[in-house]
Amino acid sequence: MDKIRITEDFRSIQDHICLELEKEDGRGAFREDLWKRPEGGGGRTRIFENGRVIEKGGVAFSAVEGPTPDKILQKLQLEKADFYATGVSIVLHPYNPMVPIIHMNIRYFEMSNGINWFGGGIDLTPHYVDKEDASYFHQQVKNTCDKFNPEYYPKFKKWADDYFFIKHRNETRGIGGIFFDRLSSKDGNEMQQIFEFAKSIGYLFPKVYRHFMNKNHNLPYGEIEKEWQSLRRGRYVEFNLVWDAGTKFGLDTNGRTESILMSMPPTANWQYMQEPKMGSREAQSLSLLKKDIDWINQ
Amino acid sequence: MDKIRITEDFRSIQDHICLELEKEDGRGAFREDLWKRPEGGGGRTRIFENGRVIEKGGVAFSAVEGPTPDKILQKLQLEKADFYATGVSIVLHPYNPMVPIIHMNIRYFEMSNGINWFGGGIDLTPHYVDKEDASYFHQQVKNTCDKFNPEYYPKFKKWADDYFFIKHRNETRGIGGIFFDRLSSKDGNEMQQIFEFAKSIGYLFPKVYRHFMNKNHNLPYGEIEKEWQSLRRGRYVEFNLVWDAGTKFGLDTNGRTESILMSMPPTANWQYMQEPKMGSREAQSLSLLKKDIDWINQ
Repeated sequence: MDKIRITEDFRSIQDHICLELEKEDGRGAFREDLWKRPEGGGGRTRIFENGRVIEKGGVAFSAVEGPTPDKILQKLQLEKADFYATGVSIVLHPYNPMVPIIHMNIRYFEMSNGINWFGGGIDLTPHYVDKEDASYFHQQVKNTCDKFNPEYYPKFKKWADDYFFIKHRNETRGIGGIFFDRLSSKDGNEMQQIFEFAKSIGYLFPKVYRHFMNKNHNLPYGEIEKEWQSLRRGRYVEFNLVWDAGTKFGLDTNGRTESILMSMPPTANWQYMQEPKMGSREAQSLSLLKKDIDWINQ
Repeated sequence: MDKIRITEDFRSIQDHICLELEKEDGRGAFREDLWKRPEGGGGRTRIFENGRVIEKGGVAFSAVEGPTPDKILQKLQLEKADFYATGVSIVLHPYNPMVPIIHMNIRYFEMSNGINWFGGGIDLTPHYVDKEDASYFHQQVKNTCDKFNPEYYPKFKKWADDYFFIKHRNETRGIGGIFFDRLSSKDGNEMQQIFEFAKSIGYLFPKVYRHFMNKNHNLPYGEIEKEWQSLRRGRYVEFNLVWDAGTKFGLDTNGRTESILMSMPPTANWQYMQEPKMGSREAQSLSLLKKDIDWINQ
């Protein structure tokens, strides 16, 4: 694969996404931080704070290289080699609890020993689960997957359910989406198609999120909904800091902390033994944070 | 060691601490949850919310037993054995940012193969580091240590500096205190002294924390201080969820989530690249979140 081409296409995707989000938000604009990694490469982190729809979020691009960290080598049981990694990573926290939190990531990794792969995914974390929204989201994701391989959606949907799972709460983080890792092929044409698939996910992102920003931002909410949002944001923190492999790996290998933790919400609350009232919208949402729900054909 | 005696003494320490804190707070009272562990044993978690001085906190006692979790056996490279563990664990988050967050833990662990030890510690996390408060705290802790062994304070103070360190921020969590683990002796008298030492830390806790509650609760503060408190609470969350061995182990081995995460603050905030203004009290505090400060002889 041509890593320069991949890097440039990923950077363009970051540009495209930021423009689209600024258009939809109307008020906020991204501020940009360019940073260098001492061991090689760097990134372009773009942060959105205090917009009209988006309260806090980031769209990060990075392309880093150097000796492969020992932790990766051990895991893969490989000898020393250099690596190159590039990707786009996004988390957005909206003001309105009726607008879902969203996460998207696409990434490419290669090593000087010839190993290379793509990974990524997109998943939605509504504070209040709306079945129609969930169905729309999964349908959009499935349509994108189906253009490349009919096996992608079912396989990667299950992977997301298993990955975005808060084990100590026995809850999924949200309604899932897709997650894939180490997607690769020895066949050059196939590998090119995997690259196109990753890019499609990148371009799908602003389309689906603009849909939710536009549709849900003016829905009414009050104190109860804001409090629930804060508690769900607390769960988001728990997932990311306790279970998310990318976050853990980044913090453990001296990654750029501020870029890794741009996924943190602006605020989060914790209450002891908080349990929503039976029959409430909060209880209804919680009951839907389960694996293996067929959101498209509910 | 007589595990029943240890268990009873630890439970009495929980009672004593709760009474002392209620006396000082004046408004709040603990609410109690009794819980059972399916594999054996249980606990008595006491939660304090919305007091006069304390906003959220817990004083937990537990005594659990059963087959030793595989993760511990692997770490110790031991064959299958049963275990018994009892302890008292506390985290308190005050309203007033001038009152420090505090953490205390004492614990006893034994296995059917004869291995046994005590562990524990006490450490202070001021939102604003006050050198006199820090000196007072460390002097009190040192006095308690010195009654048992002059080597304890320097050794366990260093251990706390290394343990309560937020590696990805290159900051200590607070001003430290002491941390010790696997403290044991084959000599019965010595082991009894270690037990007495652990209890002394338990009894020291309400004494020092009442001091800070009383002395600092009426200090003035405004929005800037509340915002800084929220950000420092965010750091507390980061330490506990990313680095704290006890939290990670508990969540990983199906511990009681609500008791483990009673350490979470009521609220926490994150801002991208938040850096206090040069020369501000916040910057001054941050500059003191370093290892190896001799707080007693500054």
